[in-house]
Amino acid sequence: MRVLDQLALPGREAWITCRTVGSVVRAIRAMNVRGAPAIGVAAGYGLALAARRSRARTATALMRDLNRAAARLVAARPTAVNLGWAVHRVLSVADAAATDVAATQTTAGKRAWDVSATEVRALVLREARRIEREDLAANLRMGRLGAALFRRRMNVLTHCNTGALATAGHGTALGVIRTAHARGRIRMVYVDETRPYLQGARLTAWELKRDRIPFVLITDNAAAHFMARGQIGAVIVGADRITRLGDLANKIGTYGLAVLARAHGIPFYVAAPTSTLDLKLARGREIPIEERSADEVVRIAGVRIAPPGVRAAHPAFDVTPGRLVTAIVTESGIARPPYARSLPRLIRRRAGGVE
Amino acid sequence: MRVLDQLALPGREAWITCRTVGSVVRAIRAMNVRGAPAIGVAAGYGLALAARRSRARTATALMRDLNRAAARLVAARPTAVNLGWAVHRVLSVADAAATDVAATQTTAGKRAWDVSATEVRALVLREARRIEREDLAANLRMGRLGAALFRRRMNVLTHCNTGALATAGHGTALGVIRTAHARGRIRMVYVDETRPYLQGARLTAWELKRDRIPFVLITDNAAAHFMARGQIGAVIVGADRITRLGDLANKIGTYGLAVLARAHGIPFYVAAPTSTLDLKLARGREIPIEERSADEVVRIAGVRIAPPGVRAAHPAFDVTPGRLVTAIVTESGIARPPYARSLPRLIRRRAGGVE
Repeated sequence: MRVLDQLALPGREAWITCRTVGSVVRAIRAMNVRGAPAIGVAAGYGLALAARRSRARTATALMRDLNRAAARLVAARPTAVNLGWAVHRVLSVADAAATDVAATQTTAGKRAWDVSATEVRALVLREARRIEREDLAANLRMGRLGAALFRRRMNVLTHCNTGALATAGHGTALGVIRTAHARGRIRMVYVDETRPYLQGARLTAWELKRDRIPFVLITDNAAAHFMARGQIGAVIVGADRITRLGDLANKIGTYGLAVLARAHGIPFYVAAPTSTLDLKLARGREIPIEERSADEVVRIAGVRIAPPGVRAAHPAFDVTPGRLVTAIVTESGIARPPYARSLPRLIRRRAGGVE
Repeated sequence: MRVLDQLALPGREAWITCRTVGSVVRAIRAMNVRGAPAIGVAAGYGLALAARRSRARTATALMRDLNRAAARLVAARPTAVNLGWAVHRVLSVADAAATDVAATQTTAGKRAWDVSATEVRALVLREARRIEREDLAANLRMGRLGAALFRRRMNVLTHCNTGALATAGHGTALGVIRTAHARGRIRMVYVDETRPYLQGARLTAWELKRDRIPFVLITDNAAAHFMARGQIGAVIVGADRITRLGDLANKIGTYGLAVLARAHGIPFYVAAPTSTLDLKLARGREIPIEERSADEVVRIAGVRIAPPGVRAAHPAFDVTPGRLVTAIVTESGIARPPYARSLPRLIRRRAGGVE
């Protein structure tokens, strides 16, 4: 499994080869691969790697190895729900097959055991591939649905990176911007640089430049200034986890933007696949918020920007209450408040519908 | 004239020697010296340097040189009013003396001319020193007045650097924090890093560390998160210019903080000497806002953080309307809304009062 090293961008296009589940866990934790959907896809392939490297000769033994790998992957980062979602999905498929095979095996004898482990390995890889393919399809569909929100040519502001780099392709919020731009509905994208990791400056700028979509990079603290001047028509961001009430965890800075958008009467949209929904939770405060190293604040590109010994806080995410969210774009449709009603409806539609 | 190079901090303590008005203009423009009051003080000494280096033998000729120097100094940066205020103040003193001398000269003959130029030079230096001394006294007084706003031990958030580095000493907003801390009213200072120049991370962190005042450095976009968690009791910032209605220009990011503070019911204080007041202007939109180089956004400490050729916007200041400001602390007293009444009253008190 090869991943584009997002810590090296935009300076270098370096690829990291992961051969073990341990190297996938490290790449997720160190943020070489990042973005909630991309982490989900990577975790799926992480399980496929674990299955491939496992020496298990029986389905039951293989499931033991897979469960161990799954626990390591899920623990890599706490906030995005897609990680757990993808791991659970692959495991379920493997488990169902393994149980099935175990049931037939009692009559079929030893040889059946061997076949079953191979079979489970193939199913795991197939499911990982399916997650990747479906994520791309979901993003393209979100792009079409979301683009319809822009009734006229306008300036939009986005935070962090929610593009091809953060997903299996096209992107969530940036996917909506891509499709809207293709339809002539985007005049200018205001790109928050997104401290401390600078995903906006490094990654979103890189993607928009390649796509020749007009954009201007701003410091995070300048967003309010451009809102006050009437230069922002809408804000659109991604999400790492969305609760039943539409509360969402997303990159630090998102909540402030939502408050500012509301204060300026600017619509605030969220674009995220249904795999980001965690309807078991009601409120955002139930979402675990990852606290990352202070060193990621006091050093930029290896250069120390604050005096030695300075204490810094680095919450990687914040929580935006659903009441500040104008609409949530998913691949199954657009949810509007009250989310406690509209979000479960989307899930039901997905379960019963086109997919 | 020696200035501590604020671009080299906190990495190095380097001093720049200015021998000409040109070198003072360059130091102000490049932000080696920054902070509205500090710029005013530097400009005063810039005129003293111009007076000293001028070869004028008559007061009239010296005034010509001083007026030329003044124009260059005032043009160095557009937003802070203290710059123009200090230059105007020194020029007025020199001009009054020169006119006075010119009036006596008609009877006194050649020798009187020579004395008068020397005399004007001395007056210019004395006035520059007076501005510096008064700024420090104003800050100490603002500290005492402002500290009384903190009725209990609390956490405060500040933006940019408004400390000793930005003034003749002690600081404006940071001066209030210093005095409040000495009185046991500060539990923790939340320091916005303040992109793009990182004055918070580089300068405020440096000052607070030296003073052993407990603080935590955060990215600008994290302020809302800590407000939502109830961890911020008050916000206090400086100002580069304040209009009659209490609208103020200050470091980019200030306006967003004011909106967020209001949304969370947190008091938003401004601390600035009366030299920052520009009561000729009514509204903030009349204040010229400096647009600085995009390069200052895409490079941090010489390291490029965005792909080459990226367009960035860098408004150095934003405007906060007076309606979002809980109180304005000056050395002449604390103004409360409506500012159109309370600010002129402070100026009258200063003119008629203790000073």
